[in-house]
Amino acid sequence: MTISIIGLGLIGGSLAISLRENGFAKKIIGVEANADNAAKAMHRRLADEILPLENAVNQSDLIIIATPVDALTKVAPQVLHLINDQQVVIDVGSTKSALLEAVKNHPKRNRFVATHPMAGTEYSGPEAAIPNLFDHKYTVICDPESSDADAVELVEKMYLSIPMKITHFEGATHDVHTAYVSHISHISSFALALTVLAKEHDEERIFELASSGFGSTVRLAKSSPDTWVPIFRQNRDNVLDVLDEHINQLSRFRSLLIKKDFETFYQLIEEANQIRKIIA
Amino acid sequence: MTISIIGLGLIGGSLAISLRENGFAKKIIGVEANADNAAKAMHRRLADEILPLENAVNQSDLIIIATPVDALTKVAPQVLHLINDQQVVIDVGSTKSALLEAVKNHPKRNRFVATHPMAGTEYSGPEAAIPNLFDHKYTVICDPESSDADAVELVEKMYLSIPMKITHFEGATHDVHTAYVSHISHISSFALALTVLAKEHDEERIFELASSGFGSTVRLAKSSPDTWVPIFRQNRDNVLDVLDEHINQLSRFRSLLIKKDFETFYQLIEEANQIRKIIA
Repeated sequence: MTISIIGLGLIGGSLAISLRENGFAKKIIGVEANADNAAKAMHRRLADEILPLENAVNQSDLIIIATPVDALTKVAPQVLHLINDQQVVIDVGSTKSALLEAVKNHPKRNRFVATHPMAGTEYSGPEAAIPNLFDHKYTVICDPESSDADAVELVEKMYLSIPMKITHFEGATHDVHTAYVSHISHISSFALALTVLAKEHDEERIFELASSGFGSTVRLAKSSPDTWVPIFRQNRDNVLDVLDEHINQLSRFRSLLIKKDFETFYQLIEEANQIRKIIA
Repeated sequence: MTISIIGLGLIGGSLAISLRENGFAKKIIGVEANADNAAKAMHRRLADEILPLENAVNQSDLIIIATPVDALTKVAPQVLHLINDQQVVIDVGSTKSALLEAVKNHPKRNRFVATHPMAGTEYSGPEAAIPNLFDHKYTVICDPESSDADAVELVEKMYLSIPMKITHFEGATHDVHTAYVSHISHISSFALALTVLAKEHDEERIFELASSGFGSTVRLAKSSPDTWVPIFRQNRDNVLDVLDEHINQLSRFRSLLIKKDFETFYQLIEEANQIRKIIA
């Protein structure tokens, strides 16, 4: 099967590696608006060739749109205009409501499948693409009832081959849940990095003391604004809601410190420990 | 050399493993107030034997106090009362001001070395002890000028053998810096866990969506209140200061979302990205 991947960054490039290695794709065509990224992607052999959008789509059984989410709402309708009734188009974006609205009334909506593989790192661009990024993680397929059964089947087969597990969400619900389990983590990390950078001027000494715990909570602060600002823009309302709750929780800890109420502080930590049920 | 380790939890137990494996310790004696932990430690062969405090100290060249920091201020003077002028006592606690105050006027202060190996995981107890926990990380030695030169030399030799790198801090400065690069990360993680637990009731579904990014920022929320409440109690003023700054930074992001000022939001993320200079 020939697959076009539009955007050969962290997600698109890693999909290219996995789908080529396991033989699911016989040929991978890259579409890259950025000439520098196109050169990097070819240097790493992420694609067999880089072609203009129309040319790439015409030759492909499956088209994967892996751009930042602001570009998605423009590129997805554009790609759907170019395909026939056998081709399948998917996105791999972190937000879904705006995209699903953008393709809702498209005559080829049935050939589109909205997906979100829940995997990533704090790095971006073709140089960030890695093997095994998706291994045994979940991919979300949103509103599969709006897509042709054969299209959903092909896409599930592709994700199972990586190998990922599959779950289904309604688009708006997806955006609420990812605000909790992904988007707020990034804001928390950005804010933590700014806190430390604002207060500590002696960078060499921070480096010495920064333990693995600090590295773990602040790692996501290295994430690209080009990826994340469009996500926060599209999922603003849900993110605001979770961010308010997060500030409230921090304020509770603050208030307990001020009052020196370490008994309640202890109980709150015990409650927080319940997260063990959710993450291994 | 015979080494007594008081408290065979994550840090004490991991030190036992490393110092036995590299031959620095010929014999390791454990002191464990908790009978359950004593049994677990012996089951894992963390110590050659478990003895009462006085008995253990009498046989040891080096005594390592690895209890939670609230017990430290009581145990350290108690151990110093038991030793002669050749023996060396160290602690491995996460806060230093209260401890240094507690031993300040002790006649054996010169045989005591305050240390903080900057390593850990979110787990605790003898079952959490692991090999290689300390590899190539920094250990802080506080106020070495208050300790005998031979005592500091022995302790540095021990840490270099694990192998760790060594840095020196004044005790009060240590507590300010660790509030930034360790203690605030834990509060942030506890609050993030409570945020998600408060808002999400459908735990199975969070589990599906929880990506590695979420796992990374929330991992420390599994940490024990028995370890952390004493740290927050002793380092309250510094932690409050950093927590205020952290809440301010989150409130800036909140305000930008409310105003839909995504340009400034983009700039803040770029600033946060500078954390790359500090963590690899």
